[in-house]
Amino acid sequence: MPYAGLVRTVTVSLGNRSYAIRIGRALIGRLGKECEALGLGRRCVLITDANVARHYLEPARIALATAGFSVEAIVLSPGESTKNLRTVQACYNRLSRARLERSSFVVALGGGVIGDLAGFVAATYLRGISFVQVPTTLLAQVDSSIGGKVGVNLASGKNLVGAFHQPRLVLADVDALKTLSDREFRAGLAEVIKYGIIFDSDLFERIERVLPRIMVRDPRVIAEIVARCCEIKASVVSKDETEGGLRAILNFGHTIGHALEAMGRYRKYLHGEAIAIGQVAAARISSRLLGLPESDADKICHLFERVGLPTKSPLSARQLRRVLEIMSLDKKVAGGNVRFVLVRRIGEAVYGQRVPENVLMESLKQQTGPLSKS
Amino acid sequence: MPYAGLVRTVTVSLGNRSYAIRIGRALIGRLGKECEALGLGRRCVLITDANVARHYLEPARIALATAGFSVEAIVLSPGESTKNLRTVQACYNRLSRARLERSSFVVALGGGVIGDLAGFVAATYLRGISFVQVPTTLLAQVDSSIGGKVGVNLASGKNLVGAFHQPRLVLADVDALKTLSDREFRAGLAEVIKYGIIFDSDLFERIERVLPRIMVRDPRVIAEIVARCCEIKASVVSKDETEGGLRAILNFGHTIGHALEAMGRYRKYLHGEAIAIGQVAAARISSRLLGLPESDADKICHLFERVGLPTKSPLSARQLRRVLEIMSLDKKVAGGNVRFVLVRRIGEAVYGQRVPENVLMESLKQQTGPLSKS
Repeated sequence: MPYAGLVRTVTVSLGNRSYAIRIGRALIGRLGKECEALGLGRRCVLITDANVARHYLEPARIALATAGFSVEAIVLSPGESTKNLRTVQACYNRLSRARLERSSFVVALGGGVIGDLAGFVAATYLRGISFVQVPTTLLAQVDSSIGGKVGVNLASGKNLVGAFHQPRLVLADVDALKTLSDREFRAGLAEVIKYGIIFDSDLFERIERVLPRIMVRDPRVIAEIVARCCEIKASVVSKDETEGGLRAILNFGHTIGHALEAMGRYRKYLHGEAIAIGQVAAARISSRLLGLPESDADKICHLFERVGLPTKSPLSARQLRRVLEIMSLDKKVAGGNVRFVLVRRIGEAVYGQRVPENVLMESLKQQTGPLSKS
Repeated sequence: MPYAGLVRTVTVSLGNRSYAIRIGRALIGRLGKECEALGLGRRCVLITDANVARHYLEPARIALATAGFSVEAIVLSPGESTKNLRTVQACYNRLSRARLERSSFVVALGGGVIGDLAGFVAATYLRGISFVQVPTTLLAQVDSSIGGKVGVNLASGKNLVGAFHQPRLVLADVDALKTLSDREFRAGLAEVIKYGIIFDSDLFERIERVLPRIMVRDPRVIAEIVARCCEIKASVVSKDETEGGLRAILNFGHTIGHALEAMGRYRKYLHGEAIAIGQVAAARISSRLLGLPESDADKICHLFERVGLPTKSPLSARQLRRVLEIMSLDKKVAGGNVRFVLVRRIGEAVYGQRVPENVLMESLKQQTGPLSKS
């Protein structure tokens, strides 16, 4: 199987904080060697969740131990509700008991929740120690493991507490995707499609074309697509690490998406599902305000539907008001105004767009009516 | 009173994160104008403690409100035991309720505990918002408010959780020192003397000479001394922001000092008291290992005694072992070895020094015998 040996490397260029993203098969088995090559200290704590641990904790632990690292594992409950300050405090206590030093490191083995939380622990323990991302979900491989945004939720909103802390390495083992549930896998595709919409119309069309092979998780096709998404994210992050401007385009569909997630108390929707609805809403708003052809908005909506992602969210009038209220608490608020990322055409996003309240309200009403049967 | 108008400015040079430290009298009344000049957003949260609030909350609030800022105040319990993650969580909730945005800012009005905690809140809320330091203790004015080290304690050790987050401005109003207790004021002098020992023998001698005027808190003398300390700290931090090397010299006396503080559960010693003992211990070790003349170690010990600071700590054999154990958990540990800052002569420190365990043990035993009656 010659393909198993092919590893793609994408570099995130950030001066002395630059790092490699490796994408390929059987990469978890190389974790130890990769950490050794980075010259990290001998002690590490591996943070994961119970679902991921079942499949990948032992391979990861063995890979690290074989390379001479001493490994302590923290296995957390799966799910967004784990991503809070109580869990962070529990992790600090474990790091302290494991006597981690400034040269020690944290390995985040899991999806976005684990990466965000473990990254925040690493960002703040001893004022910041190294960490390595081993994303095991599609969403984490193409998005959350790259770029150094780490953090946890408050009761009042998602990711309200956090930091920018770049990993030293991202190891995206596409073999790990085979154990994802269909629902998780589809949710990850919402971020994949996002890159096409905001940055690369060729990618969008490629996804439309090869969707059947993506859906059966053909590792060759998946690796190519994941690598292209990583290239786009790496390029955006290299130009704007702390979201002074350009990086905001990555939030396409996220303002409404986050509000829907919060309203569902992070139980109703997976992140990818919420931003699928959010992206369709943002596309509709883009048609009204920026002249995105209606046919392109339809294509966007249709692709999400083919994947099996929700594109509408049925809400009562009261719930709708609550969504607007949550949006006003979003981090992306400036001067009291919620700013949106919109698209002029597929492949070209603009950020910092004001959306008049009536347009937002009408689009949301349209978007939050009864579920379509398509 | 022409002197009241004299404001010294020291700049911490860190590229686009550079900022001014202003030292002088009646500066709290200028807080609003200074924040306005920085172009900060209109909303801020002021974090302080009940002791400081009694004297300075209203003047600070009025200064900010007069300049058009909307101000929410958080008044915390005084003391090191407030500096924990529970308090941080409570602050996040208040910031969220006050609808702080990315352009909003936090004002830290108080001593080291308030500055460290409020700075950590600012460093991590919305992945980092601006903050302004208004240090009201001598220790905070010459040390903790400058340089961006922020954080909180864990049960297992001091400052184990934190970040580097530079303030946008430091406003050191020396008039605020007049309400300090004698004990707090003396504790602050431990850091002042430290700058002389590690960096500036002229400063050390000046302190020896003018100590009586310092002790009566002559604002003219104090302002000069505070400004010199700020210059030294600013110069060290500008060269080594994240303590890759040189900045470590600022930790002179701190490894032993922190362990003594932790062992006394942050109740027995003020920080300055603990590091006075730690500095005398480090001077004695310096004589044994680096040839610091015994007479210089005596001068150091004598100056702390004149100030009225402790130079010894009576400990049982069991407590002594506990101190060594706590030291091994210190952030400054590398490869399992505690590293020390030592001095070759007054005014010249070296960092990263290994101290053989027997030397450390003997020096500690000498240092931790019964209190001298001098």
